[in-house]
Amino acid sequence: MPEKPIGIFDSGVGGLTVLKAIKKILPHENLIYFGDTARVPYGNRSPNTIIRYSVENARLLQKFNIKALVVACNTSSSYALEILKREFPFPVIGVVKPGAKAAVNKSKSKRIGIIGTEATIKSGAYRKAILSLDPFATVFEKACPLFVPLIEEGWLSGKVTELVAEKYLQDLMDKDIDTLVLGCTHYPLIKDTIKKLVKDKVTLIDSAMAVAEEVEKKLPHRRKSENEGVVRILVSDKTERFERIAKMIMGEDTLIEEVSIDSE
Amino acid sequence: MPEKPIGIFDSGVGGLTVLKAIKKILPHENLIYFGDTARVPYGNRSPNTIIRYSVENARLLQKFNIKALVVACNTSSSYALEILKREFPFPVIGVVKPGAKAAVNKSKSKRIGIIGTEATIKSGAYRKAILSLDPFATVFEKACPLFVPLIEEGWLSGKVTELVAEKYLQDLMDKDIDTLVLGCTHYPLIKDTIKKLVKDKVTLIDSAMAVAEEVEKKLPHRRKSENEGVVRILVSDKTERFERIAKMIMGEDTLIEEVSIDSE
Repeated sequence: MPEKPIGIFDSGVGGLTVLKAIKKILPHENLIYFGDTARVPYGNRSPNTIIRYSVENARLLQKFNIKALVVACNTSSSYALEILKREFPFPVIGVVKPGAKAAVNKSKSKRIGIIGTEATIKSGAYRKAILSLDPFATVFEKACPLFVPLIEEGWLSGKVTELVAEKYLQDLMDKDIDTLVLGCTHYPLIKDTIKKLVKDKVTLIDSAMAVAEEVEKKLPHRRKSENEGVVRILVSDKTERFERIAKMIMGEDTLIEEVSIDSE
Repeated sequence: MPEKPIGIFDSGVGGLTVLKAIKKILPHENLIYFGDTARVPYGNRSPNTIIRYSVENARLLQKFNIKALVVACNTSSSYALEILKREFPFPVIGVVKPGAKAAVNKSKSKRIGIIGTEATIKSGAYRKAILSLDPFATVFEKACPLFVPLIEEGWLSGKVTELVAEKYLQDLMDKDIDTLVLGCTHYPLIKDTIKKLVKDKVTLIDSAMAVAEEVEKKLPHRRKSENEGVVRILVSDKTERFERIAKMIMGEDTLIEEVSIDSE
């Protein structure tokens, strides 16, 4: 019998940075990824809809007999994590806590900036997670709704992206932060543009590696094998755009399968 | 028995410009609008998903006993119009043909530009509609995927929007077009920024009024009444963002109801 896979979902393509990090740390595990490309983006939807979509995604992955679920979407992690933990029998790991922990560990001044989608920022999930680790930290938050569309358009650098980043990040820079959490799995793809703006004064936290380490720690049954694990990538809408970005992140031989998602 | 309403759907908030135009021309008609805000945007999804969503939206409005359906979404009009006409018993009116007709009528040089979402441009629907009206016209097309997110962010003017518009429109300007079709119901909201760029050389075609005139012509039973018609606005996800933009377009006393959409 093949070893049970680890399930990972995101609203779209961004969570592939998490898939890649898990694959790197746990190369023998079977991994199954679901990108909800028929309903992306989640970041500007209401809490109820974000929760409903997250539960439906988990149910889809449950059919593949997963042994653990990684919620590789900051918006879903911010709203649906507790519900998913309650409703499903396998361990559920989100991206917010590992990212918050990495930020508190790295920051010296404990003046920490958070950027994310409108919904993630509105939830206050990162603020709460950081303050529960260090009640004396000071947290500054900024929603950056245009970053995801810019990244999906492939404008990872250039004048427009720099100008948008400047418009969004100037306030945080004025607050003298020394650490900035990229609170959306898309954002690592414009890390260079952000780095150029904040320079060496600010450490950027990319939560993908932090999550992968958390998965390694929490995993109930590690696969014992010399062989590489199998990676499957499912989407609810197969588009050329997803395929292009997926190959950029995961390599040219990446295969993508379309599945249909059951609404409640 | 109350008079049957006219149904109108769009992927989100953009089609409200069409609702407003219909309300202006046919103030006595009852109108019911559905914005599929839980699944917006349609413009970067695959044809199959666009068709499925469009049929589900029409089915939802059918429950309200509509006498005609206006597809106020360019992406849906480009892919799903013939299927909707075949599947449903009421007249179905799209936005592409009326917009194409207005462009051919206005253009002197018959060098016509089209801007729209990735899916609308890829479908070639405007090109086909224009060439069927005037086989000697020359059509230039450009997808502008960042316009919708910019408009939804509320950046209707300013340096970023100007720069993005310049980046998208420069090619079309170089082709010496004299008419430009705003092939997405969101785009009229950044008309001023586009106008500033193309100046008086280019006539902008906003299809909302053209569609409203088409509806007036095709309507089977006109309502006879001295009273104003009732307007209902439904969405699949009620967000503050939608409410804010809807009030900007339709007035401060606009009420918005959330409904759930049945997947197939």
